[in-house]
Amino acid sequence: MKAKKLLIVGTLLLSTIVLASCGKSSSKGYSTTGSTGGTYQGVIKGGHYKTSKARGVNINQNNNQYNLKSFESGLTDVSKRVFSTKNYIFQEGQYLSTDTIESWLGRKTKSNPNGLNPTRGKKSDPNPEYIQQIEEQDYMTESGSSLKLKGMTIGIGINSEYNYHKKTDGPSYTKKISDEEVQRQGKIAADKVLKRLRQRKDLKNIPIVIALYKQAPDDSLVGGTFFAYSKNSGSSVSTWHKLNYKNTVLPKANAETSQNSGSSTDNDSFSNFKSQIQNFFPNLSGVTAQAQYHNGSLSGMHITITTQFYSQSEISSFTAYIARAAKRYLPHGIPIDIKIQSDSEMQAVVYRNSGSDNFQSHVFNSY
Amino acid sequence: MKAKKLLIVGTLLLSTIVLASCGKSSSKGYSTTGSTGGTYQGVIKGGHYKTSKARGVNINQNNNQYNLKSFESGLTDVSKRVFSTKNYIFQEGQYLSTDTIESWLGRKTKSNPNGLNPTRGKKSDPNPEYIQQIEEQDYMTESGSSLKLKGMTIGIGINSEYNYHKKTDGPSYTKKISDEEVQRQGKIAADKVLKRLRQRKDLKNIPIVIALYKQAPDDSLVGGTFFAYSKNSGSSVSTWHKLNYKNTVLPKANAETSQNSGSSTDNDSFSNFKSQIQNFFPNLSGVTAQAQYHNGSLSGMHITITTQFYSQSEISSFTAYIARAAKRYLPHGIPIDIKIQSDSEMQAVVYRNSGSDNFQSHVFNSY
Repeated sequence: MKAKKLLIVGTLLLSTIVLASCGKSSSKGYSTTGSTGGTYQGVIKGGHYKTSKARGVNINQNNNQYNLKSFESGLTDVSKRVFSTKNYIFQEGQYLSTDTIESWLGRKTKSNPNGLNPTRGKKSDPNPEYIQQIEEQDYMTESGSSLKLKGMTIGIGINSEYNYHKKTDGPSYTKKISDEEVQRQGKIAADKVLKRLRQRKDLKNIPIVIALYKQAPDDSLVGGTFFAYSKNSGSSVSTWHKLNYKNTVLPKANAETSQNSGSSTDNDSFSNFKSQIQNFFPNLSGVTAQAQYHNGSLSGMHITITTQFYSQSEISSFTAYIARAAKRYLPHGIPIDIKIQSDSEMQAVVYRNSGSDNFQSHVFNSY
Repeated sequence: MKAKKLLIVGTLLLSTIVLASCGKSSSKGYSTTGSTGGTYQGVIKGGHYKTSKARGVNINQNNNQYNLKSFESGLTDVSKRVFSTKNYIFQEGQYLSTDTIESWLGRKTKSNPNGLNPTRGKKSDPNPEYIQQIEEQDYMTESGSSLKLKGMTIGIGINSEYNYHKKTDGPSYTKKISDEEVQRQGKIAADKVLKRLRQRKDLKNIPIVIALYKQAPDDSLVGGTFFAYSKNSGSSVSTWHKLNYKNTVLPKANAETSQNSGSSTDNDSFSNFKSQIQNFFPNLSGVTAQAQYHNGSLSGMHITITTQFYSQSEISSFTAYIARAAKRYLPHGIPIDIKIQSDSEMQAVVYRNSGSDNFQSHVFNSY
């Protein structure tokens, strides 16, 4: 495992170096990826996309890939609150290297004084590793013919549980970490990270946003959520702003729905949708959804329908029907996408972007 | 293998029966799936999609799944030439059962007198099985509160090569079947099929379209194409209309491009697109396309880009860039879709529908 990790990191470093040297040869010119409504443009230099200096670190940090994706896209959402997509251009983090982030994510030891996690302590009752992933995003504006760094966002992912072994190859134990502790540890780490960044000349005067993310457990079918952020001009963290996101899986188990929560109508409308399309096409293997709530209201859904179709005409008819049923049964005014897939491949997609009322669909085909 | 096939067929038959009995309970009412521009509406009866009486037969008939997909969607394209999507409603074939089609696809023997394929003959030099798949499509119009059958399309897939074993578990041999033979065998089968259909009272007076498809070899990376169709009112086949489709894979091997063919510019524009995006994002594993030509002109493309991305921001930036590069480098005025995927999942899709100039894109995400 370790050797593989190092190999990956090595390969990444190498490709970053190659990239960087290619980039230099092309004077100071840059271009951008272009953007579709509400997304950032990305930086292209010398024809190449400028990848992160710490590329791939977080892949190894997450046993649950939902934590990887929701952390990354959630971090971009936090950035949008501060750096508007109209005025800023997105650049993958260029200031924190793989080495730096890996040392920060380690435990604090003599050989790793910058580790943000506590020493292991007793083997039979170890201190949790709290800080699980860190990501840097750079926000640029045009200045003459080049781009200048005008802001940075740092995401910090904090574990909500800690899995450990008392003996190598022994059974696995889990320590729950309370929400209070997640918050406390996140804020401690944020303060240290901010101070370290400010020691760099080039990061002295830009606004630095720090966002805290609570990791979902390894067996969760949805990722974690960001719960706080602060926008900082100095070297100590200023006000924390609360973020109120909640992720859930639909349909809910019976025990959950009996709670008198605001989300029970959403679960009902999803269940209606589900039974409608299962009645339409009886041998669907699964209809599930990830739903996100923001300040108590449903803010988006990712639906997956696993099918056992036998022909393109079935897929095509089913897709047309889904688009109609989705508009009729699913909550209005939020972005939703629906993947229609077999065990081996995606067959069609139906989606509604944020702000739109109609669903668009595309059936995958082959010549 | 055989046992598994029978099990699948058995399961399908069972579900068809269950479906049929469900359907009956709901009087004569029907509804349709709805359609998106240029596609047929499908028949829903008693809330259920009406699946084919011979559902799933063709899955077992095709070792190369490209032949399955291109046969099915190609057949619908042929139907559109005769039965307009505005006036006709599509129904999965209800007249030819699994048993019927399986007996027709077999060899002609004492126990299977309706087999369209010749007897096996010498084991060391067997007669090819020419006819590989058959599909029925029904076209309906409204008549009062019910739907009436007003047309039928039958697709017949003819092998372009025949694979056989001289001894069980012995080496595999292949016989090439010439285009002339493919056409001849297809027309013989069409005549027999049409006569058999006309013997049924309910199919005596409707127009029956028969379309002939040349199967691609088992190792092909594109499916076969339809090469002829006829629209028939009587019980012998009337005029055959030629269809001129060609499928190919891009980028072409060097030997192919040196031919002075009309498609070399298309290959060039695809190669430009490919090198542009590979330069942009250096560790893409593959950029390939299926292209279809109709009467010598490029009529559509399915592009697959296999990636090794590390973050959602990379996918998002790459997708925005692809949409721009596709508009700039790929041929105009034809439907194109681009799947952006890792080994394990689809990450984004960029597509342009027929008749549209702009590409739409959707990035798959997760909470």
